Amino acid sequence: MITVVKADGSREPFQRKKVFRTCLRICGSSAVAEAVSREVEARVYDGISTKEILQMVFELAAKHRPAIAHRTDLRMALSLLRSKPDFEGFIARLFEKLGYRVRRNLIIQGFCIEHEIDVLAFKGGEVVYVEVKHHVQPHRYVDLDVVEKIWATLLDLREGYEKGLHGFDISKPLVATNTKLTWHASKYARCRGVDIMCWNIPRGRSLEELLVRFKMYPVTILKGFNLETLYKVIDMGYMTLKELAEANPEGLSEKGLPGKTAKLLVEHAGKVLDAMP
Amino acid sequence: MITVVKADGSREPFQRKKVFRTCLRICGSSAVAEAVSREVEARVYDGISTKEILQMVFELAAKHRPAIAHRTDLRMALSLLRSKPDFEGFIARLFEKLGYRVRRNLIIQGFCIEHEIDVLAFKGGEVVYVEVKHHVQPHRYVDLDVVEKIWATLLDLREGYEKGLHGFDISKPLVATNTKLTWHASKYARCRGVDIMCWNIPRGRSLEELLVRFKMYPVTILKGFNLETLYKVIDMGYMTLKELAEANPEGLSEKGLPGKTAKLLVEHAGKVLDAMP
Repeated sequence: MITVVKADGSREPFQRKKVFRTCLRICGSSAVAEAVSREVEARVYDGISTKEILQMVFELAAKHRPAIAHRTDLRMALSLLRSKPDFEGFIARLFEKLGYRVRRNLIIQGFCIEHEIDVLAFKGGEVVYVEVKHHVQPHRYVDLDVVEKIWATLLDLREGYEKGLHGFDISKPLVATNTKLTWHASKYARCRGVDIMCWNIPRGRSLEELLVRFKMYPVTILKGFNLETLYKVIDMGYMTLKELAEANPEGLSEKGLPGKTAKLLVEHAGKVLDAMP
Repeated sequence: MITVVKADGSREPFQRKKVFRTCLRICGSSAVAEAVSREVEARVYDGISTKEILQMVFELAAKHRPAIAHRTDLRMALSLLRSKPDFEGFIARLFEKLGYRVRRNLIIQGFCIEHEIDVLAFKGGEVVYVEVKHHVQPHRYVDLDVVEKIWATLLDLREGYEKGLHGFDISKPLVATNTKLTWHASKYARCRGVDIMCWNIPRGRSLEELLVRFKMYPVTILKGFNLETLYKVIDMGYMTLKELAEANPEGLSEKGLPGKTAKLLVEHAGKVLDAMP
């Protein structure tokens, strides 16, 4: 039996179905996913890492959809964002897409102390206190202490509201992260009613699914440019592939990017966006 | 005016009184502290770091009390302990000195989840939940999130107790650390009734004062031995200077230390202990 070594060092049997699903998420075509997963199955060896498999999927998929050669995977792209302000801003914009009005970087007086709140999201009478947790290492999980901290902050904010120290009647807390939660953290969050928006949870409204639904792909998904360049692009106001694809290359080069790079960036952003599922 | 650069980069005017107090804590003699602080005053220059001043104090004090040449300062010694199990064990023993019965490394079922508790300390009807936070960097402060985590854990443990999930009727939580708390963390701790045992707080029962009162000096206070050797000594069961000073050098070398090192360790431990204030 061929076993695969996962990022956390654990092993599991190779399953072609998983490769199929991964490839489907990357290229959006069942036919391509079928072909690629069969090719991968023929190539894997015992002890191969999931990372190697992912690389293989990208390489093979790019033969069917050339634009895929210009992109990395979405999870990696999110981890490459700068925690502040990029990822925080990204989450804030996601809440806007979900129909919320958003306020960022608030200092709110709780009962005991002032709290720095990353994002507050408002819709109807609902007020969501969003704690944004970005991990540069995409396989680092959000642990219990983060969720406990959120819960303690919520209690202090609610007490502060009751004492008239601020005007935000918070309905619920939510932890938003580009990675996953540990089992302990998830269990505690469910028990306390702390909502989770993480890479793969909750089903149907996970970060990955929402980003795909809204086609909100960060420009860090582009391959072949150095990070410094991509951060410059973000600082110029082009956070997503769509924004970059619609940008004027001349505008970018006026703002300080070499003309050729600017042209390539816009071109690749368009191609990659078109090839997204 | 001569200004001194502190560990956090801030500056303050040089004050001989402070040097006097530092030296008094190191050597226990007003006469020596007076002489040393005057010498330091004559030597300092604008922009000198507190670290350099501390080194100067040690060097000058060693001229009066030669044993001081064999030791570092207590704060550094604590930071050199391994977080687990050394520092945790050290705190547990301190609670025993304070008359508590102690249980360590418990898994306790709270209302939502199981919690790993570093130390529970019992005296009379009192049950203290002690969260131990060790920093290798002696100038790194314990921040708000740690105290919020303690508070959330306490609430979960108390709810668990009320539901009959465990039998510990916790009276209060306490954070024990070898460093200090940020202003925010202290304010929140006071507000929520989380007790603090840190390097300099609370006055009269700070970690430093308690260790001096009980003459509980970790062997990592010894200078001139590498850390590996000192950790071996701790693993052999000699955590404090007193224990090491009373040890049989032959016993140490039987357990694997070179004979000469063992002899020196015991000798220096005795000398340094005698010269402690």
